Amino acid sequence: MNLFEKAKEAAQPIAGLQVGEVVNWYYRVQEVVRRKTLSGKKDYLDLIVVDRSGRLTAKVWDNVDQLHKVIQAGNIYRISGEVTEYRGKPQLKISRARPMDSSDSGCRPEDFDELPPFDSAALLEETFSLLREHVRDPFLLRLSDRFREAYGPVLGQAYGAQKIHHAFAGGLLQHTHSLLKLILAVAPHYGLDKELLLIGALFHDIGKTAEFKTQPALETTLAGGLLGHLVISLEIFLELKNQIPDFPEPLSIRIQHLIVSHHGEKEFGSPEVPKTPEAYVLHLLDLLDSRLNIFSEQLKAGEAQKLFSDFNQALGTRILLDK
Amino acid sequence: MNLFEKAKEAAQPIAGLQVGEVVNWYYRVQEVVRRKTLSGKKDYLDLIVVDRSGRLTAKVWDNVDQLHKVIQAGNIYRISGEVTEYRGKPQLKISRARPMDSSDSGCRPEDFDELPPFDSAALLEETFSLLREHVRDPFLLRLSDRFREAYGPVLGQAYGAQKIHHAFAGGLLQHTHSLLKLILAVAPHYGLDKELLLIGALFHDIGKTAEFKTQPALETTLAGGLLGHLVISLEIFLELKNQIPDFPEPLSIRIQHLIVSHHGEKEFGSPEVPKTPEAYVLHLLDLLDSRLNIFSEQLKAGEAQKLFSDFNQALGTRILLDK
Amino acid sequence: MNLFEKAKEAAQPIAGLQVGEVVNWYYRVQEVVRRKTLSGKKDYLDLIVVDRSGRLTAKVWDNVDQLHKVIQAGNIYRISGEVTEYRGKPQLKISRARPMDSSDSGCRPEDFDELPPFDSAALLEETFSLLREHVRDPFLLRLSDRFREAYGPVLGQAYGAQKIHHAFAGGLLQHTHSLLKLILAVAPHYGLDKELLLIGALFHDIGKTAEFKTQPALETTLAGGLLGHLVISLEIFLELKNQIPDFPEPLSIRIQHLIVSHHGEKEFGSPEVPKTPEAYVLHLLDLLDSRLNIFSEQLKAGEAQKLFSDFNQALGTRILLDK
Amino acid sequence: MNLFEKAKEAAQPIAGLQVGEVVNWYYRVQEVVRRKTLSGKKDYLDLIVVDRSGRLTAKVWDNVDQLHKVIQAGNIYRISGEVTEYRGKPQLKISRARPMDSSDSGCRPEDFDELPPFDSAALLEETFSLLREHVRDPFLLRLSDRFREAYGPVLGQAYGAQKIHHAFAGGLLQHTHSLLKLILAVAPHYGLDKELLLIGALFHDIGKTAEFKTQPALETTLAGGLLGHLVISLEIFLELKNQIPDFPEPLSIRIQHLIVSHHGEKEFGSPEVPKTPEAYVLHLLDLLDSRLNIFSEQLKAGEAQKLFSDFNQALGTRILLDK
Amino acid sequence: MNLFEKAKEAAQPIAGLQVGEVVNWYYRVQEVVRRKTLSGKKDYLDLIVVDRSGRLTAKVWDNVDQLHKVIQAGNIYRISGEVTEYRGKPQLKISRARPMDSSDSGCRPEDFDELPPFDSAALLEETFSLLREHVRDPFLLRLSDRFREAYGPVLGQAYGAQKIHHAFAGGLLQHTHSLLKLILAVAPHYGLDKELLLIGALFHDIGKTAEFKTQPALETTLAGGLLGHLVISLEIFLELKNQIPDFPEPLSIRIQHLIVSHHGEKEFGSPEVPKTPEAYVLHLLDLLDSRLNIFSEQLKAGEAQKLFSDFNQALGTRILLDK
Amino acid sequence: MNLFEKAKEAAQPIAGLQVGEVVNWYYRVQEVVRRKTLSGKKDYLDLIVVDRSGRLTAKVWDNVDQLHKVIQAGNIYRISGEVTEYRGKPQLKISRARPMDSSDSGCRPEDFDELPPFDSAALLEETFSLLREHVRDPFLLRLSDRFREAYGPVLGQAYGAQKIHHAFAGGLLQHTHSLLKLILAVAPHYGLDKELLLIGALFHDIGKTAEFKTQPALETTLAGGLLGHLVISLEIFLELKNQIPDFPEPLSIRIQHLIVSHHGEKEFGSPEVPKTPEAYVLHLLDLLDSRLNIFSEQLKAGEAQKLFSDFNQALGTRILLDK
Repeated sequence: MNLFEKAKEAAQPIAGLQVGEVVNWYYRVQEVVRRKTLSGKKDYLDLIVVDRSGRLTAKVWDNVDQLHKVIQAGNIYRISGEVTEYRGKPQLKISRARPMDSSDSGCRPEDFDELPPFDSAALLEETFSLLREHVRDPFLLRLSDRFREAYGPVLGQAYGAQKIHHAFAGGLLQHTHSLLKLILAVAPHYGLDKELLLIGALFHDIGKTAEFKTQPALETTLAGGLLGHLVISLEIFLELKNQIPDFPEPLSIRIQHLIVSHHGEKEFGSPEVPKTPEAYVLHLLDLLDSRLNIFSEQLKAGEAQKLFSDFNQALGTRILLDK
Repeated sequence: MNLFEKAKEAAQPIAGLQVGEVVNWYYRVQEVVRRKTLSGKKDYLDLIVVDRSGRLTAKVWDNVDQLHKVIQAGNIYRISGEVTEYRGKPQLKISRARPMDSSDSGCRPEDFDELPPFDSAALLEETFSLLREHVRDPFLLRLSDRFREAYGPVLGQAYGAQKIHHAFAGGLLQHTHSLLKLILAVAPHYGLDKELLLIGALFHDIGKTAEFKTQPALETTLAGGLLGHLVISLEIFLELKNQIPDFPEPLSIRIQHLIVSHHGEKEFGSPEVPKTPEAYVLHLLDLLDSRLNIFSEQLKAGEAQKLFSDFNQALGTRILLDK
Repeated sequence: MNLFEKAKEAAQPIAGLQVGEVVNWYYRVQEVVRRKTLSGKKDYLDLIVVDRSGRLTAKVWDNVDQLHKVIQAGNIYRISGEVTEYRGKPQLKISRARPMDSSDSGCRPEDFDELPPFDSAALLEETFSLLREHVRDPFLLRLSDRFREAYGPVLGQAYGAQKIHHAFAGGLLQHTHSLLKLILAVAPHYGLDKELLLIGALFHDIGKTAEFKTQPALETTLAGGLLGHLVISLEIFLELKNQIPDFPEPLSIRIQHLIVSHHGEKEFGSPEVPKTPEAYVLHLLDLLDSRLNIFSEQLKAGEAQKLFSDFNQALGTRILLDK
Repeated sequence: MNLFEKAKEAAQPIAGLQVGEVVNWYYRVQEVVRRKTLSGKKDYLDLIVVDRSGRLTAKVWDNVDQLHKVIQAGNIYRISGEVTEYRGKPQLKISRARPMDSSDSGCRPEDFDELPPFDSAALLEETFSLLREHVRDPFLLRLSDRFREAYGPVLGQAYGAQKIHHAFAGGLLQHTHSLLKLILAVAPHYGLDKELLLIGALFHDIGKTAEFKTQPALETTLAGGLLGHLVISLEIFLELKNQIPDFPEPLSIRIQHLIVSHHGEKEFGSPEVPKTPEAYVLHLLDLLDSRLNIFSEQLKAGEAQKLFSDFNQALGTRILLDK
Repeated sequence: MNLFEKAKEAAQPIAGLQVGEVVNWYYRVQEVVRRKTLSGKKDYLDLIVVDRSGRLTAKVWDNVDQLHKVIQAGNIYRISGEVTEYRGKPQLKISRARPMDSSDSGCRPEDFDELPPFDSAALLEETFSLLREHVRDPFLLRLSDRFREAYGPVLGQAYGAQKIHHAFAGGLLQHTHSLLKLILAVAPHYGLDKELLLIGALFHDIGKTAEFKTQPALETTLAGGLLGHLVISLEIFLELKNQIPDFPEPLSIRIQHLIVSHHGEKEFGSPEVPKTPEAYVLHLLDLLDSRLNIFSEQLKAGEAQKLFSDFNQALGTRILLDK
Repeated sequence: MNLFEKAKEAAQPIAGLQVGEVVNWYYRVQEVVRRKTLSGKKDYLDLIVVDRSGRLTAKVWDNVDQLHKVIQAGNIYRISGEVTEYRGKPQLKISRARPMDSSDSGCRPEDFDELPPFDSAALLEETFSLLREHVRDPFLLRLSDRFREAYGPVLGQAYGAQKIHHAFAGGLLQHTHSLLKLILAVAPHYGLDKELLLIGALFHDIGKTAEFKTQPALETTLAGGLLGHLVISLEIFLELKNQIPDFPEPLSIRIQHLIVSHHGEKEFGSPEVPKTPEAYVLHLLDLLDSRLNIFSEQLKAGEAQKLFSDFNQALGTRILLDK
């Protein structure tokens, strides 16, 4: 391999790509959907590609039939193309792709698992340290331990959502950790049951780990579509709680209430609305953290020269881009 | 005891009381609440009394302080008063009450449990016969058997709701049985999965048996208030399903979907809306049966001389009383 | 004409077309609309073509100006193109079209009227047999007879809607017949007035026959747009009722109530909501039948490899495709 | 009869009653309903009494059983009592009542029909003069004439509603006349079809004359409850239109559209919303006139010393009482 | 004055009254409204009485006419009666009242101004210390100073609302101070503009000081009813801002945005919804603090023996009373 | 310059352009936005061009990169292209563009300011004549004078909105003038305060002059996005009112009420709803005038051969195109 070849072979991790950059490197395809343009006239491929550094939307506009046969979600491809910009975010325009094969020395499949954009193990450790520090009730402590054993590893990699907010590896952990911190800041202000709140926050969205898959393809599961993450979170709580002898029933019911009421209103999918101050606070802080994540993403994506963004569906408004 | 006394002692079961009748007999008090009149000026007692033949609302307007000390929910009293009429329904105006004591020979406490207004054992038997006749899947059959063992006796006595519809002993069984019959009439018309529908209907409202108590007082439970019957129904299903080895997970998820989506819309407390034809049909037939029960109650209570009822909250309209 | 030519001339009825098939045959154009792509950049033609076996959406992407001059709704054309797939449904991509002329021997215009996908005459007969069997009231019997004389032939060919559900020739008859069967299954269960319900179902959507035209083009009429099918159904009832001497006014009003309340809620276009059990049942069974038709269409159209459909506007949810 | 008796016999027409006045005179009872107080403890009678000068709410608090047997809606009684004030409006507290009999010389039943609080015949004449002056289309002219023949006398006496706005004899005429004047002021400003608007306004609420009765008792009719005034107005239009040979169908449909869309939104009972500028204007002016009538009534009833009224359901707000 | 008299003269401040206590002491009447019972049958007086220790609802059931002439809002009366309980809260049943006069030695009017239930001066000082500590921008600092000069004294006594939440002297200060603390806990978590948030919180509800009066009577003002506190807060901001030369316009607009958007949604009275993260956070923390105040009040008022409260309008649910 | 050149140089004002016309003339670019087609595949430029005769949407489909560098909002260009039709409205398809330069003799920048499509000075004069004729209150007269001085010139050129209704130079004046005329027609009919209404109408939308800019680019301002025109109108009123000594506060509050309540409902951005008849009338007439302007625009744009328009978002319906 000559120097020129070597230069071309320089790794191009997703997190470091620049708009305008010519791409010639390996990525895992997380999702591939054949779509028609809105006019219905042409087909194209809509992809999400990932590596351990991040994820990126990508498009195939040409040779659609041929590349559709080649590309399958979950596999790794050597992809050629160019980074373009769409609504203030980078997007990969793919011109060619071939499967990674044995000649692609030095590339291992595990190099292409999306990794959280932070030290996930450290944040996981910090999260459970917080819990150990603040939870005194022995049943809740054991519940927290069982949670860590059963869901810790999954939590470290899980998305916070398929889209809208915290939609990236580690997003669920980041959101959960953020909630714990907010709870510790707010609960003493009102003399609320801090321990109940912390455990409620720990479980409230854990059902998202079974609501959809991100590996190999991003896909809603049968349980995810028919039950939704709120119900699955409840079932995970029940499963772990049943493993702890003599877990007090009233305590169990109160935690379940925090889980099932955390969407705040029936029309947002909570079968019961908050009936305790703790349940109300969990709902409001969850709302706060998810909405501010959307603000933050929108502000990052905002085009410099505009004063206000386009209408944002999740926030129900255009937002001010000029910070 | 002379003959006259004896005549006075003639039993006066609730089901047989007439407006205008003077009452002097034994009843169990199911609920007693001290209220103020809307003006806030006077106190009165608001009661529900039951015996095995039925239930009746009752009021104490005089001697409120004294009778409030005497009457406790769950006990049996010898009650004197008169049957009056309120909005087309009978109501007992209580003038005196004393606890049943040992001198009240021939009255046993169990004589005052409200009994369904039909042969509950026979309807229960018919219900499970229907299931045995139409369910072929071995897992669903075992689930049906387990249900009968665990909840059959309770189901036979349970209310269908605290108010609005099927609010009487046996009401839940009557509603469930009615749903099974409707399903058997409608499912073949559309080629739907009859067995799944029958099992979904069996479980859909079973959580009502733990949502509130009718003995001794009518009262929402902790789980009932914080979780609601839909979530409790789901948990009862999970508990029974876990007792059956190798119960197929996809089948389990589909039944859970029928349970959690049976209110039809998120704003009515379903965390997910119906995503299968079976779930949609269960929702609609459940709605049909409960609403027609309200129509039927309203038509029975309607005053003869009026053409239209007052506004009915549950139906969202005044209804035609002239049949 | 050589054999190859002859093979090309083999009839290609719409109901038998396969995705990928090259088309070279005669169809009637039911609708043709010139549209711009959503980008506004290009024009295309959006068509519906029919023959007696069915109907199909079609597009013209090329030679738009020239073909727009040639193609007029209501006429029959020899069309060349290819069957493609869009959102799981077949679609005809038209490359060429010329009017059918005298040289097209053996093709008669009436061969291109869309026919119901079932024996319409038999279903019509069965429908009115049901009515004769179950209706005993002499006024209702005469109303049913007048209906058959006046609207029977139209009903046999009418669409159930312009889109959403039962949108094909015979759809209205199929929906009406289905409702009658459901009524006969449900009415006895609740002791409802079966005859009133059957007549209400017969008339409830008959206004659709005047709400829009399907021949030659699919088009909303003046009365359809300004009054809607519910009001037109009412007017058709009044017109036929007025032809029957001494028709009892209270009976007339009750039937009118079934018609005007069948959408169930004011916000769905019913000027009054159901105030009798019969009106409520007609509304709910109408909802059941139309929604299950949408489920059924969606399940047929669903792409095999997906677990859940895209969001369906009419059902308000994505649905499970895996039966 | 001595002078004192004679003084006592001085007529006390309703329109002239003052708060605090002792009443001893003849009135027709338009409505009598036995109610319980909200506490459910006591019964009372809720009445409306009328004479040709106006109408007044009245109550019977004492001797309820006895007076309930005596008083029947539709008859005329000699009533004793006192005028009190309730929420800023006068109210008659009845202590005694006896039927008018032959000894009550000089009182004829027709003296007790409520009369409009203005010269109804003159306003009727003015209304149809306006129409004759502004309507040129021969079909619309004949329709206006037919309307006057068939509904003129009724219109002159009819209520505008059972409650909320224009709820008095002549109210419908006053509202209709007001609308015609507004139309003549607004239509030229926008170049709208004045004649169509005038005829639409004439018919829009005429169904109220059959929606409820005010003689002898105020009562919703069967058609009123099951169809509502909007549908009845439509049917009255159809009936009169059918009496005019060759009435153009498109013109008929446009007028029908004005009638059925005049509530403006489906949720307010219009099966179709306004699709022409004329329909939109009729809706908005109808809204304007009815709401301003409510403002006006509320301002008249307002207690002098308060700045804002209580919450008014129809206006959706408290209103400023300080003019 | 003998000893017995003296004992009777022992001060009975409102904050120390017990249910069942016989009252014979001086209070200021803040509000007096003559009402009818819901049955309309009887009149009573509905009062709020205050002294420096607190406020209490009170009723006059007897001698209504006579006492209505005696009692005027804003004056101080020697009141006799008894403390009763209504929905878990104490209520004063007044039997007699006479104006305080010169013989009532030792009672000065200012003794009857309601005082905050905490050291208002200290909390005010702490509030502005917080601002001085955390606000660095010179314009915002001057604004904070101007605010203190102009509204500090008023803020220390103002109610947070007429009802629902923080409805007591000092309530507005308590709510404002609580918000500042929450902002300081939450703003750093998300890197938000802390200074902007603090100033926005300071002004957001200051309009409540002009929306209604609490002295002498509790009463909505003309500006309060026609503009509302949100608009008045905005106008107060504009007035103070205009007193500071060269106040930057963009900064002014951002603060105005926090004020006008703090109700979060248009339907709750915000003419614009939050378009910056700071505005969203202010809205959510305001919601959190007011709702938790309602929870807290409801929990204090809750009757011990009930598991769930009655339906609470402001929270949209019954709440759990068992802490 | 030869004759052919001269012919080409003939002025082509926007108001006179015909569909199909080849364009080669000078226009000012009011807005230019680079967009992607909905498929995301291609970029194009979306422009609004103006001259003194009117405004027109325009597109650049080819040479997008090059023309994007050339064209800046606010400048004047010599533009070549063709007038096409889109949804019944003309649209300019731009093929080439170059900046106007010194060689373009005879073209002055001010020739390209959009002018109202009517004599703006005359309508302004008529508007203030109306006010002088009908306003007698000296404070309101001075307010009207101050308004004319401060906002008269701006009002004559201002748009009534960025889109939806009255979206053209002079639109705000036209709408305001129309409202004054309607008020003069309607106020006497109900005996309302005409002067208050006229002044309220004058100010109600004046905030639109600061909500967005039309020169050089059409753009929402910081205040427009964060406060909205209703709040800005209020602030303009306060500013002018403060310049008039002794302006009565109650009068000021009533005018402010008309401004802040003119959207009629909270959900449409009014922080308070109308609480006086005048405020209600201003709201309804404002609605009438804006909606009829939309009807009128839609009817002008409607394609001749269609009976009904597409769904119109602002009117919430398809409308009848056949006048």
